Amino acid sequence: MGEFELINRFFKQKTGFWLAQSAQSATQSIVFGIGDDCALLQPAPGMQLAVSTDMLVEGRHFLPDVDPAALGHKALAVNLSDLAAMGAEPLAFTLALALPPARAADTTWLDALGDGLLGLARTHDCPLVGGDTTAGPLNLCITVFGQVPAGLALRRDGARAGDDLWVSGTPGDARLALGALRGEWTLAPPVLERLRTRLERPTPRLALGRRLRSMATSCIDVSDGLLGDLGHILDASDVGATVDAAKASEPMTANLDPSGAAAGPGIEIARGAALAGGDDYELVFTAPPAARAGVLEAGVQAATRVTRIGRIEAAPGLRVTDGRGGSLDAGAWRSFDHFA
Amino acid sequence: MGEFELINRFFKQKTGFWLAQSAQSATQSIVFGIGDDCALLQPAPGMQLAVSTDMLVEGRHFLPDVDPAALGHKALAVNLSDLAAMGAEPLAFTLALALPPARAADTTWLDALGDGLLGLARTHDCPLVGGDTTAGPLNLCITVFGQVPAGLALRRDGARAGDDLWVSGTPGDARLALGALRGEWTLAPPVLERLRTRLERPTPRLALGRRLRSMATSCIDVSDGLLGDLGHILDASDVGATVDAAKASEPMTANLDPSGAAAGPGIEIARGAALAGGDDYELVFTAPPAARAGVLEAGVQAATRVTRIGRIEAAPGLRVTDGRGGSLDAGAWRSFDHFA
Repeated sequence: MGEFELINRFFKQKTGFWLAQSAQSATQSIVFGIGDDCALLQPAPGMQLAVSTDMLVEGRHFLPDVDPAALGHKALAVNLSDLAAMGAEPLAFTLALALPPARAADTTWLDALGDGLLGLARTHDCPLVGGDTTAGPLNLCITVFGQVPAGLALRRDGARAGDDLWVSGTPGDARLALGALRGEWTLAPPVLERLRTRLERPTPRLALGRRLRSMATSCIDVSDGLLGDLGHILDASDVGATVDAAKASEPMTANLDPSGAAAGPGIEIARGAALAGGDDYELVFTAPPAARAGVLEAGVQAATRVTRIGRIEAAPGLRVTDGRGGSLDAGAWRSFDHFA
Repeated sequence: MGEFELINRFFKQKTGFWLAQSAQSATQSIVFGIGDDCALLQPAPGMQLAVSTDMLVEGRHFLPDVDPAALGHKALAVNLSDLAAMGAEPLAFTLALALPPARAADTTWLDALGDGLLGLARTHDCPLVGGDTTAGPLNLCITVFGQVPAGLALRRDGARAGDDLWVSGTPGDARLALGALRGEWTLAPPVLERLRTRLERPTPRLALGRRLRSMATSCIDVSDGLLGDLGHILDASDVGATVDAAKASEPMTANLDPSGAAAGPGIEIARGAALAGGDDYELVFTAPPAARAGVLEAGVQAATRVTRIGRIEAAPGLRVTDGRGGSLDAGAWRSFDHFA
């Protein structure tokens, strides 16, 4: 199969059908997509363009036996999560794909990859508008484009002393699933099944991000661990924070065991997963106390749990408490760093 | 070195200095660049956003011993060439980079890569605004953003019967250099040196592309070979063409040997390089005969040679003549296809 046939069969045709069906929302911003030297986009008047790019490498971000539909989903989800963290709405994305010869010849695998990718794209009205395909070690590089009203993007540098610190969803799920798959601990099969979906098909918090635009003072998505990514907000905003480890891990442990007692891995591991586990793609954000009701309402509207886990302080540094008055060693949870 | 330190040292610092120095043109469109979940861009009013992405893989697009500065230059140049082919002006780019551990530790290599990349970026006022860095087999994925007045982008589907067919520069140079480096033929050292620069540091024809906006009816850049890429224009425009092989190879052979007789490789190889060699990043475009003087003037203004090499015809298919009334087999020059 030639390069052009591959693009046409597994990506362009799936996208073309969809564009033909859709005459509204984001697709109005696509002047034209796949098939020329460049795609042409037209953000709506008054909107700024948000851009993010992520590269997924076999053996590093996924294993060779990964479910290709899950891989397609996740490759786009991690990019959409960056749009969510800015409060941006998706417009379109490009895909650059390096394929070893065996993958390029595996039409079942490519079809599932395309379905996983374009299924999530369709959910968020974010069409594929261009890309590149080449032979090489398996690598997916996605660049996503979104739009956000001028001046309203959620940034990392706006946190202020006195702000509440919030997190969405149930951080730690992905790390807990990964540990169980690696044999570090065991999870009951139905729990593992659920958490594995969270690891392999993360949910970009786009609906929440948009609703936080006029309330949150800063926001970031959790890809490398809650404390590590929070550190970027603290650095950019020149503030410190205290995080309640019990509150931060409570959503996940409650999810794990409705009785409230952590099952299987134990409370220390659950806390570690919540505070330092990567790959959750939840949002960590700050907002003034006056916005508490608004933040909770945004969570309801977005059908996304939001939990207040601490506060921003003028004193630099990151402090972690155990929720019972004791302090924990923040340095014990090191963030994931690709070259560390 | 950690991921954040690597980005900061070799890419962000070089870019930050430059942005601080520049208060005009494209950089006014950068609301903010590296350092948040997304970059934010603001195209000028009335402009559409042109987007293109290309992935370069070690062993496929470059060899392990490639000069890293040349690699940085070329990785961006091939993307800027796509903007040129749309008549767009560069705004910004993102870089996703997978590095094996040995490369991530080689500060000399990384420094040269950053210099080559950001040197060309600075030439075209096209700052780095974001990206991703990960461990993995060496892979550079660049996505470039440009702007073009609404409705004026040069597309592939506008060629009409009766149009002239043009090419910029001296197509074939890159293939001739590649063959000499591979030992397929020999070139005099000064000629090889010059053509090798054309192969390793191609010149995106941005100045020419912009000037063709209101004249050319279609345009594409030559990455996979002149006849192959021309085929995309013919398919998209539903027309055919006759190409004069002597005229198409004349710029390159004249460049090779001012006396007009092809040196070294011989006329057949020179023709093959001009008509089917890849990696030239010249522009192939069509324009009505009434625009001839304007096209020549655009070439003068852009300091880029332009050569009329044929004509667009209603009859489908691609015909190649030898410039002396004879016809040649167009199928003998097969385009380069990554999975063929």
